[in-house]
Amino acid sequence: MSYEVELKFPVIDAADLESKIEALEPERTMVREEFDVYFSHPARDFNQTDEALRMRRVGQRCSLTYKGPKIDTTSKTRREIDLSLPPGLRMFDEWAELLLALGFRPVAEVKKLRRKLWIKWQGLPVEISLDHVDELGRYVELETLTEEECVPAARAKLEELAAHLGLKNSERRSYLELLLEKRGRGEE
Amino acid sequence: MSYEVELKFPVIDAADLESKIEALEPERTMVREEFDVYFSHPARDFNQTDEALRMRRVGQRCSLTYKGPKIDTTSKTRREIDLSLPPGLRMFDEWAELLLALGFRPVAEVKKLRRKLWIKWQGLPVEISLDHVDELGRYVELETLTEEECVPAARAKLEELAAHLGLKNSERRSYLELLLEKRGRGEE
Repeated sequence: MSYEVELKFPVIDAADLESKIEALEPERTMVREEFDVYFSHPARDFNQTDEALRMRRVGQRCSLTYKGPKIDTTSKTRREIDLSLPPGLRMFDEWAELLLALGFRPVAEVKKLRRKLWIKWQGLPVEISLDHVDELGRYVELETLTEEECVPAARAKLEELAAHLGLKNSERRSYLELLLEKRGRGEE
Repeated sequence: MSYEVELKFPVIDAADLESKIEALEPERTMVREEFDVYFSHPARDFNQTDEALRMRRVGQRCSLTYKGPKIDTTSKTRREIDLSLPPGLRMFDEWAELLLALGFRPVAEVKKLRRKLWIKWQGLPVEISLDHVDELGRYVELETLTEEECVPAARAKLEELAAHLGLKNSERRSYLELLLEKRGRGEE
């Protein structure tokens, strides 16, 4: 079973961060717009169980992703099942229809412009996402996939990388949670 | 939204039925083994709601299918959302893992050898499935897909076809239901 080890930070100085990442000589980069819809479960309160079910659309490619509860109290490490849907413009709507029929309900949408860069840090392949999230602003995510027994070592390396990049105030909340909290405050 | 209009009958005389179908000059035929796993819902009793969620594997192709409640009391007409998974041997296990994580549970497996034939009956495209189901024996299904407003007309044509083929004692129960009932009796 694969685990996603992930750290997220707010970006204070985007230009400084980008130059530090460029100095690590990314193997490749990619810019894309990601559109996510999060669903609630017919019987479980995902807020309580710390799970998530997400449909993502990037161009004509869609995926369905389950995120399990976080397994520690400081990072965002969690079990992840990330499955591609067959290509096609209609896939998003057809799979959403299936989820609706089974009692899942869309609860929020998250739209972001994401610049992805792949680097190696002390031999560990790391995916860096520079995100500009609608309504929330700039964040950076450092992520690697690993087997269960390697999670602590991978996490330690990601934390060293974060220190090297000058990142502080790790954010454990998902964009979905940040967005719902922000909207909740706005409604008060 | 598409509806599956379907009639199913036990096969008493397979040779007679096959020769009557051949006389209708099928456009093409196909034989394949189908392996189905049915799942229970985390919060609904699909037996009560008359729904079903099924993963099917045919060779390396898998699909996930939701079947809604039957919409009348004599045929097997119901809403159907039938979605292909991307090709690949591991798809079946990966999607089953996602369903498990969301609280769905496998409740039964159905294995059958299915011979499919496509004919036109009074202008209506009809898919005929000659099934040899493990533990249950021989059945035939007559099926067509249609929009909601055309369901009664399609059903009437399928019933005429069934009479033409000498089929009697329409079976509304699914293979899953028949199998669970048979096993239930066996355990008494």
